Amino acid sequence: MKKYQVVGIGNAMVDVLARAEDAFLAEAGIGKGIMQLIDMDRAVSLYASVGPAKEISGGSAANTIAGIAHLGGRSAYVGKVKDDQLGAIFAHDLRAQGADYETAMAPRTEEAETGRCIVLVTPDGERSMNTYLGVTEFLSPDDIDEAQMAEAEWIYLEGYRFDGPDSHAAFAKAISACKGAGGSVSITLSDPFCIERHRDAFRDMIRDHVDLLFCNRAEILSMYQTDDFDTALAQVGAEVGIVACTDSENGVHILSDGQRWHVPAVPTDIVDATGAGDLFAGAFLWGLTNGHDLQTCGKMGNVAASEVISHIGARPEADLSELFTRHGLI
Amino acid sequence: MKKYQVVGIGNAMVDVLARAEDAFLAEAGIGKGIMQLIDMDRAVSLYASVGPAKEISGGSAANTIAGIAHLGGRSAYVGKVKDDQLGAIFAHDLRAQGADYETAMAPRTEEAETGRCIVLVTPDGERSMNTYLGVTEFLSPDDIDEAQMAEAEWIYLEGYRFDGPDSHAAFAKAISACKGAGGSVSITLSDPFCIERHRDAFRDMIRDHVDLLFCNRAEILSMYQTDDFDTALAQVGAEVGIVACTDSENGVHILSDGQRWHVPAVPTDIVDATGAGDLFAGAFLWGLTNGHDLQTCGKMGNVAASEVISHIGARPEADLSELFTRHGLI
Repeated sequence: MKKYQVVGIGNAMVDVLARAEDAFLAEAGIGKGIMQLIDMDRAVSLYASVGPAKEISGGSAANTIAGIAHLGGRSAYVGKVKDDQLGAIFAHDLRAQGADYETAMAPRTEEAETGRCIVLVTPDGERSMNTYLGVTEFLSPDDIDEAQMAEAEWIYLEGYRFDGPDSHAAFAKAISACKGAGGSVSITLSDPFCIERHRDAFRDMIRDHVDLLFCNRAEILSMYQTDDFDTALAQVGAEVGIVACTDSENGVHILSDGQRWHVPAVPTDIVDATGAGDLFAGAFLWGLTNGHDLQTCGKMGNVAASEVISHIGARPEADLSELFTRHGLI
Repeated sequence: MKKYQVVGIGNAMVDVLARAEDAFLAEAGIGKGIMQLIDMDRAVSLYASVGPAKEISGGSAANTIAGIAHLGGRSAYVGKVKDDQLGAIFAHDLRAQGADYETAMAPRTEEAETGRCIVLVTPDGERSMNTYLGVTEFLSPDDIDEAQMAEAEWIYLEGYRFDGPDSHAAFAKAISACKGAGGSVSITLSDPFCIERHRDAFRDMIRDHVDLLFCNRAEILSMYQTDDFDTALAQVGAEVGIVACTDSENGVHILSDGQRWHVPAVPTDIVDATGAGDLFAGAFLWGLTNGHDLQTCGKMGNVAASEVISHIGARPEADLSELFTRHGLI
């Protein structure tokens, strides 16, 4: 048995969650429902203009790994923080959830700080993310421990990390070590605008290396530059072994070996959509590495996503195992 | 009209909120439902042993001032943070709520950090507080702006601050400036063990300077070293112009000019008791400085307390004005 069911690699950051009206987003030039990269100056000025906030550890792949650890899965995370207060918060929350996390912290002398994401939650529960990457931008091949990747049944790569100059090489190193030891590779497309920025790199990686792809409707439309969801689904299904494509309240489409299943979403009141896709992936991977069939994995993903959008913050609060039991999944 | 309805002085800190079982408290030697002071080493080791947490600005008097500002009251706060990430969070959340906050930050070269309170919330919603004071311990007379105190209809002093060596003098300076300009003085007793540590200083201040006292059952029993609640109430009522003594789910007793009223609590499901007393005081002071009678002030306090204990964190989330309207108070 490998030491880890899943090792995730992504942007390590703390979420700064504040409520905002739609008019504020428009005035501040914030694209609703997407992730925008901002620099430190913009982070400071935007922060000064938003209301009281809460700080809760985030980071897309880190949320996924926290979900797997919460379910008792054997997991580890790779992503860079600085040796500062926010870095300590991030590291604590991941380890306290039961995940291994050993990435070297950037030293205090570094000018950049631990990454943070100013998440503005509108009354409809949608989240609009403004990301200051800070030191997490500089994740490099040196941060990848090949022995750890070889100990992973699956690695899980965060698409956002394509924004880092050295991270393509870091991903390549992780993939090679993992696959060389018989492991498998999953990735999330993260965001349609991230795909715009790196479409070719995503396409190459998906065709050449990826065994399981997490994506959503907007992302594959962007990826395959089409307006037709079924066309995009057919195309991605032909390129990847397993695809899990979420479609908000319409649930998830799962494709594998020419087969296609639709699993409806679990209805819930949306308080804060942050982390829905991340927790979907976490529960799906936990199910898969525990021998469940793809449809059940999809159901688990939907249950976990419905839990995380029912409260502020992108980490699970209710007992997901208990929810799986209640839904007859375990 | 004075610039401020209320200026609060207290321990500036960020709450680190985590859930814990009662067995964990016992094992870790944590007194349930009270505040314990801890040093940095203990803060680090305790933090390492608790589960994933959320960071939300706290500090007793700061919560009170945040409540007043939330209600649209003219308010300011005095309390010391460091120029670090937690200090920035604290300052932002208070200003974003609409309170003035101009206390000079301790420089980055200072070894001590911004204060934090590791709040462990047990399944019954009770909170047990472990406070690393950090730089907030060193609030001194230099941090008190006499012109600001003279601009306050009321100052609000946090009893916890009696734990600081220079803060007795800081309080004296604030009281003198406020009273000299015709303002009034309120104080909260904060915690029965804090009273044990500083009973004489509390007694002297209450008799000599305090116009309005916020306290709870355990605190006045400790203050007057009696087991009989009515005896303690009679004694404190004879010493202070207005007393608001909360008694958890039994509501609040208000005493003034030989009269006594009881205002029942607003029933609610307790998620996290953190901030109940702070928000009671905030709403009470807002009511008082807006010309409401004492019973109405007590009702407002109870409504605000019930709101803040219905969620994680000690700052208001629902619209308190709307709740006051719904309860027919405004």
